[in-house]
Amino acid sequence: MKGLEKQKYILRSLMFVPAHNEKFLNSAMKADADVLLLDVEDSVLPYENKQIARDNIVRYVSQKKFKQVIFPRINDRESGQLLKDLMQLTIPGISGFMYPKSYTGQDIYFIDKLLETLEYEKRLPLGTFKLIPLIETSAAVLNAQDICKASKRVIAIAFGCEDFVTDLKGIHDKGGQSLSVPRALISLAARANNVAPIDTVHIKVHDLQDLERNLVIAKNLGFEGMLVLHPKELPLVNKYFSPSEEDVSDAEEMLQLAKEAEREGKGVAVKNNKFIGPPMVAQAQNIVEKNELIMGKLR
Amino acid sequence: MKGLEKQKYILRSLMFVPAHNEKFLNSAMKADADVLLLDVEDSVLPYENKQIARDNIVRYVSQKKFKQVIFPRINDRESGQLLKDLMQLTIPGISGFMYPKSYTGQDIYFIDKLLETLEYEKRLPLGTFKLIPLIETSAAVLNAQDICKASKRVIAIAFGCEDFVTDLKGIHDKGGQSLSVPRALISLAARANNVAPIDTVHIKVHDLQDLERNLVIAKNLGFEGMLVLHPKELPLVNKYFSPSEEDVSDAEEMLQLAKEAEREGKGVAVKNNKFIGPPMVAQAQNIVEKNELIMGKLR
Amino acid sequence: MKGLEKQKYILRSLMFVPAHNEKFLNSAMKADADVLLLDVEDSVLPYENKQIARDNIVRYVSQKKFKQVIFPRINDRESGQLLKDLMQLTIPGISGFMYPKSYTGQDIYFIDKLLETLEYEKRLPLGTFKLIPLIETSAAVLNAQDICKASKRVIAIAFGCEDFVTDLKGIHDKGGQSLSVPRALISLAARANNVAPIDTVHIKVHDLQDLERNLVIAKNLGFEGMLVLHPKELPLVNKYFSPSEEDVSDAEEMLQLAKEAEREGKGVAVKNNKFIGPPMVAQAQNIVEKNELIMGKLR
Repeated sequence: MKGLEKQKYILRSLMFVPAHNEKFLNSAMKADADVLLLDVEDSVLPYENKQIARDNIVRYVSQKKFKQVIFPRINDRESGQLLKDLMQLTIPGISGFMYPKSYTGQDIYFIDKLLETLEYEKRLPLGTFKLIPLIETSAAVLNAQDICKASKRVIAIAFGCEDFVTDLKGIHDKGGQSLSVPRALISLAARANNVAPIDTVHIKVHDLQDLERNLVIAKNLGFEGMLVLHPKELPLVNKYFSPSEEDVSDAEEMLQLAKEAEREGKGVAVKNNKFIGPPMVAQAQNIVEKNELIMGKLR
Repeated sequence: MKGLEKQKYILRSLMFVPAHNEKFLNSAMKADADVLLLDVEDSVLPYENKQIARDNIVRYVSQKKFKQVIFPRINDRESGQLLKDLMQLTIPGISGFMYPKSYTGQDIYFIDKLLETLEYEKRLPLGTFKLIPLIETSAAVLNAQDICKASKRVIAIAFGCEDFVTDLKGIHDKGGQSLSVPRALISLAARANNVAPIDTVHIKVHDLQDLERNLVIAKNLGFEGMLVLHPKELPLVNKYFSPSEEDVSDAEEMLQLAKEAEREGKGVAVKNNKFIGPPMVAQAQNIVEKNELIMGKLR
Repeated sequence: MKGLEKQKYILRSLMFVPAHNEKFLNSAMKADADVLLLDVEDSVLPYENKQIARDNIVRYVSQKKFKQVIFPRINDRESGQLLKDLMQLTIPGISGFMYPKSYTGQDIYFIDKLLETLEYEKRLPLGTFKLIPLIETSAAVLNAQDICKASKRVIAIAFGCEDFVTDLKGIHDKGGQSLSVPRALISLAARANNVAPIDTVHIKVHDLQDLERNLVIAKNLGFEGMLVLHPKELPLVNKYFSPSEEDVSDAEEMLQLAKEAEREGKGVAVKNNKFIGPPMVAQAQNIVEKNELIMGKLR
């Protein structure tokens, strides 16, 4: 049930960029987002723009214009665009895809096998392309565990609150009543399957106080990062989802003490009169590794 | 995963009426409830009254006394009354049955097959009688998806909070702590399976302010309608679960724009600088259809 | 789905006692806890102390030093200690085991079969040793129903909030956001499977006001009892999870009226103008039986 092999990505901030719009693409190149979700789906309309979006992605990525990890958001199976999306965008420089409007694990299994088929055709290593399913239907919320288990490509699942509330036929109420249980279920399902839970976009992009209120909730509930609509949200989002200096120095001290205890043949290390059990050591290692990844990125 | 064929019923207000009591039956005839839940179960005691209730239902329905859609609430399998209920009440004029105290999908599968057997015997079209399972045990809350999937007859599931809290051995606390997660789960399970979620009865029937507070929660969480104990609750309940005039005119405008865009060969319509994607068109169609059903009823 | 055979234990207060520490063991002998969770796991470190803990448990239990029901908390499968724990501690006087860090029903199935194997070897009746799985991972929260169903030995499941929040990578926030949905799910899963839900330890052992606030929540959500870290919490915990005098006298009156109604050939009894249906009679019986168990203990 353990194993942290999947956590090689930093997933604090995943920013949507409408890919038919070169102005947005150019400004995204400089954004401090961990992942760019180059959109071919809902922000790319009318349909004529979808091919422009795909062409842009292929050109920008081939020219290595982005420093960020790239996950295009493709169109769903019922859009009539999915095959075009995947045939054209399964190229080097693309880490994987965000898949929208999934309902069940079977939807993800289908995408997994489609990607595998393309990997065979293009003679790429199997498993090259990862998946981040968007959880934005009532069915997907309840089937989130199945969605995580459906493919080893799934490195994260992300909550999409707007489409979700529409599917629920509920109201995106100010108090957050309609989102609270789904949000908790999504984080639980992800953590239960060693997948990163990514919180929903924050709709009111200019209200940074409200963003911060939501970041606190996201951190409480165990989210690893957040979907982002606007670059101005990035500093706060990255800050909240990075380990604090104190976290890091605590973790380093713990690892140090554990190493010494082992060297001296003691069963277990002690810190502040408390034994440091194996789960605490594992957690400390996580924090240190995550911090190194983030620091490596800043260099 | 889509398809809205099941939504032919208006399910804003479903009112319980103890069916052994002719005074209640007579006054229910005039009530503005969408559905009458003619009760043969918990409000009909002692057992001698159950046969009176069944006889009343058969007589009133045969004489077409009700303008509303009729769903008797039958007794559960362990009551020793279920076979009598179903053999006598599977008659024209009855749309289906509310089944109480289910635990699993298998309970609903059993009722489905029992109804099918009766439909064969009485040479009625298969699927004549629909089902509204009451979700009023801890097991049913957790198995609500299975319950929705267990039979195509299931058009709605309804939360029964009083029996639920008893089964949970919890407390129906003022803040609603014991109901909040189950309520959210029931709505999610229903919407995930294209079934209408119906919120629990409001116990304090004379406190309309508290009713309104609960209607706001129900709307947030995506409920389609509510169980009702007393006719005085109906105006508020019907109002909250009807699309507002603004909803309807917005939806009509959207459909108009989408039609024009199609006629003019444009890929997609635009409203207030926003593209109107297929999900928004589908949602608008829903609202307009629901409004027409409600208006048709008022005529 | 019914049957209350499992409820023969009083499970209001289950207190952890580090079993390598004789001072704690001696003071626990006098504590008014329903169950002692003699710990061989997380509070027993370094590893050298684990054998001391096992030896202490065997000695104290063989000498019948405890008046309470005894459930040692054993180490998990990955600790390398589990076989030693179970081989040494499957002795008369031990009612069963608390199993930590389960993820799925399969983990519990494994322990069930291991216990069965030991019961065969030691020629003890099959099913001698019961299980209380700790629900302290995200996976276990979502798989709590499977965990309850995995073995007939499971008499209760207990929430472990600290390890849970670590596994979730969330924060144990003051408002209880990260715990609220899991807490509700655990109680639902237990009640849905006729297993007793036990609420998490209260960490701030010296803040009895906060304890009481948590007891109110636990009662609302249907919990049967609570894990306890310190004896000073026991009076409040036991009080909250005992039926009140009023509960008991109400229940006794109900049973009396039901008995009379049966003797007089009436279908059903009436109390305060309300019919007393079979579920209310069953509930009343539960309360009276629980009260008798508690009273029997005090004698």
